[in-house]
Amino acid sequence: MVELDLNSDVHWMAEALREAQKAFDKGEVPVGAVVVSGNKIIGRGHNLTEQLNDVTAHAEMQAITAAANYLGGKYLQGCTLFVTLEPCVMCAGALYWSQVSRIVVAAADSKRGYSLHGNLLHPKTRYEQGLLANDATDLLKRFFTQMRHSKS
Amino acid sequence: MVELDLNSDVHWMAEALREAQKAFDKGEVPVGAVVVSGNKIIGRGHNLTEQLNDVTAHAEMQAITAAANYLGGKYLQGCTLFVTLEPCVMCAGALYWSQVSRIVVAAADSKRGYSLHGNLLHPKTRYEQGLLANDATDLLKRFFTQMRHSKS
Repeated sequence: MVELDLNSDVHWMAEALREAQKAFDKGEVPVGAVVVSGNKIIGRGHNLTEQLNDVTAHAEMQAITAAANYLGGKYLQGCTLFVTLEPCVMCAGALYWSQVSRIVVAAADSKRGYSLHGNLLHPKTRYEQGLLANDATDLLKRFFTQMRHSKS
Repeated sequence: MVELDLNSDVHWMAEALREAQKAFDKGEVPVGAVVVSGNKIIGRGHNLTEQLNDVTAHAEMQAITAAANYLGGKYLQGCTLFVTLEPCVMCAGALYWSQVSRIVVAAADSKRGYSLHGNLLHPKTRYEQGLLANDATDLLKRFFTQMRHSKS
């Protein structure tokens, strides 16, 4: 029997996917994020741009703000952000300011991903991409398929 | 006697400077912004990153969110953002998503300005820079001089 490591990257990314599912259930583009520090989630967020009528209400922005609120300080050194889709330019800029130590991404975003504009992240931030990418992509595909059907 | 055009760019930038002064008075890096639509301010903001412990609490972010809230929609087509300092990458990314029609900036930011990373703005967004730049720069200089003195 395989033992589930509750503190593994896969576990935290599954939590980010759970956040993405919440967005999906609300009719939002399904992207989710969690901020982890000391083997604990200290900030969560999912895309709420439609519900809040606010282009800044991306999953990462909310997770960053929640984590800083939890810590009582605005810097996220020592923290890892898990997010189901590659951050956009806005979120990469916010992550730069946060000085987050590590970012783990599931799926790449070939249209709006920050990496299309070079490396916008903080030089001290480690970046990894591809963890549970298929799950994140499947959820996004299901969302856009559903959107197209509901419009036709 | 020169008549003051209440709907001129100078007038709106003076309002953005007034927001920057509010940030100054709270011990925040003095940057201010207003969003104008139909000769009316529909969103205001000043930097509150320290008070809110939140790296995302830049003047532009708050002005965008306030304007979208006023409009009941997340897009700022037909609106102009006046801001006292060149937007950073995060704010440029947010302005991209907002599809704001025009951005008028006072001072350039040679260290953290978005333009160091190429053009991150929406192709339909018009951009102008330099209006009341000296006033914006003077306020920033006064702030950093004061900071240095309070630390020594």
